[in-house]
Amino acid sequence: MTAPPRDRRKSNQEGDKVVFDDLMMQGEAPGLATYGPRFEELIDALQAGLTVAAEEERPTRLGIQPVIARSVVERAGYVEAFPHLLGAVHTYEGDEKRWRSLVGEMEAGRDWSEEHRMSDVVVLPAVCYQVYPHLEDVELVEPCTVDITGYCYRHERSHEPGRMRSFRMREFVRVGEPESVTEWRGRWLERARDWLSSLELEVAVEPATDPFFGGAARLMKPLQESEQLKWELVAEVEGGTRQAIASSNYHKDHFGGTFRIGAGGGIAHSACSAFGLERIALAVINRHGESPENWPLGVGKAVAR
Amino acid sequence: MTAPPRDRRKSNQEGDKVVFDDLMMQGEAPGLATYGPRFEELIDALQAGLTVAAEEERPTRLGIQPVIARSVVERAGYVEAFPHLLGAVHTYEGDEKRWRSLVGEMEAGRDWSEEHRMSDVVVLPAVCYQVYPHLEDVELVEPCTVDITGYCYRHERSHEPGRMRSFRMREFVRVGEPESVTEWRGRWLERARDWLSSLELEVAVEPATDPFFGGAARLMKPLQESEQLKWELVAEVEGGTRQAIASSNYHKDHFGGTFRIGAGGGIAHSACSAFGLERIALAVINRHGESPENWPLGVGKAVAR
Repeated sequence: MTAPPRDRRKSNQEGDKVVFDDLMMQGEAPGLATYGPRFEELIDALQAGLTVAAEEERPTRLGIQPVIARSVVERAGYVEAFPHLLGAVHTYEGDEKRWRSLVGEMEAGRDWSEEHRMSDVVVLPAVCYQVYPHLEDVELVEPCTVDITGYCYRHERSHEPGRMRSFRMREFVRVGEPESVTEWRGRWLERARDWLSSLELEVAVEPATDPFFGGAARLMKPLQESEQLKWELVAEVEGGTRQAIASSNYHKDHFGGTFRIGAGGGIAHSACSAFGLERIALAVINRHGESPENWPLGVGKAVAR
Repeated sequence: MTAPPRDRRKSNQEGDKVVFDDLMMQGEAPGLATYGPRFEELIDALQAGLTVAAEEERPTRLGIQPVIARSVVERAGYVEAFPHLLGAVHTYEGDEKRWRSLVGEMEAGRDWSEEHRMSDVVVLPAVCYQVYPHLEDVELVEPCTVDITGYCYRHERSHEPGRMRSFRMREFVRVGEPESVTEWRGRWLERARDWLSSLELEVAVEPATDPFFGGAARLMKPLQESEQLKWELVAEVEGGTRQAIASSNYHKDHFGGTFRIGAGGGIAHSACSAFGLERIALAVINRHGESPENWPLGVGKAVAR
């Protein structure tokens, strides 16, 4: 699953597969990767499976970008709670003359960011943040269910298997009256477990907390735990390493309050059911091997067709 | 095509379509957007069309991330030539105590980036940069052809219709001996024009130059022009506004030299044929209207199914 060593990649005499790994190649910075054709087909097959799993809910599919207005994550509380994980986009605001000397700094391997300033966008930390601003000041007569896929960025400083800094999340998001949200969340937890079991993965459902920064952890973790706001579905992604491959998060009225979303005369609640696509693919490969013929029926058939 | 005014989005009494636009909703920062279900289906249909157009070449499909190691864009010359467009990812490197006071700055609407430092990643400016590092020190016996789709970020400071800061590009990239690259590029220029004509778009093929920063423009633009290194396929994307919806770029030995890619005993040349997916979708909607039934056969059928 790691990139072939450089000395193996000497020529493409036997076709491009010698040059490009079929599954995964490491990027030039830790926690980054490029994925090969077979890995992408596996992701496609997983996506198709999730679309079928969600079908009866007829969620509204939205297309989202991997960057978002900084104002949204500021308002939503992400900046305050997770400054260590957030990627802020900075841009060059100096003039041409200054740039000529900064290029020299870059060529000498030194810092060239002196004239860079924080811009109005950040790299998207979690896909559901793209939804709430569009519901601002809306009164939800019916609960609203959204289906989104996007790349998230988290500035992880450790890089064990499956802990990427940039990764794809498929998320189903529910916003509405509290009961319609908690009931939906329970249903999705079952559905996620069933679907992952159909891939013959051994999955454990575990209560979880978010990696809050500093003192916020002492305040927030016990709260998340005691109220059971977050569940993770955990599986082995590489020999001996277990990771959360899916999760179910109940935000109560956090986003409803921030974005003034109403439901049933009160503040709307929200929850999301999230699937880490690369991690699920890694778990499938870890469990069944690299050959699609050995993968569970639906997935293997789709990829090997 | 613009977001409905806030006062129209009061409730979802008649279904989620009242809340979420079917095509496009503006983001909280200029040049950002969220796309609705019909727009995403149009993108899917365009993608399927491009896959068919490229089929005979059997390109290697790679999955790429919307961020990339800073070292790659430094080496490739992007930082030097386009500092004004690059989004550099900065991260918080201060401690917990300092963060408590910076949160206060944020809440007061002031700059909170004092302890942020440039990280080792940037937001991806062009998708083909993800390919060359994996070909480093490779001798190409046969030309190599890659098929990638990804989100690019450019810190555009003007925001006319179709000029987004974050957008999807489908790119076919060719790396190999000079003739195998120029011939391929000529073939793709024809193929791109034919495919866009099949969508009944009026497309003009125009020589183009990249938006180099400052003095680099004076040096590079005449070179790009005289050597006809870049062609753009231009179409109307909104009443009166024309944009490049596809382009064809010949890099000569620029990337081959930088990444030491060999071909035929010399330095490999490279070219890419790039399709701006949102812009092509906007051009289809501008030309044929918002109803899939009125879209050209292949596209409309796929979406309306």
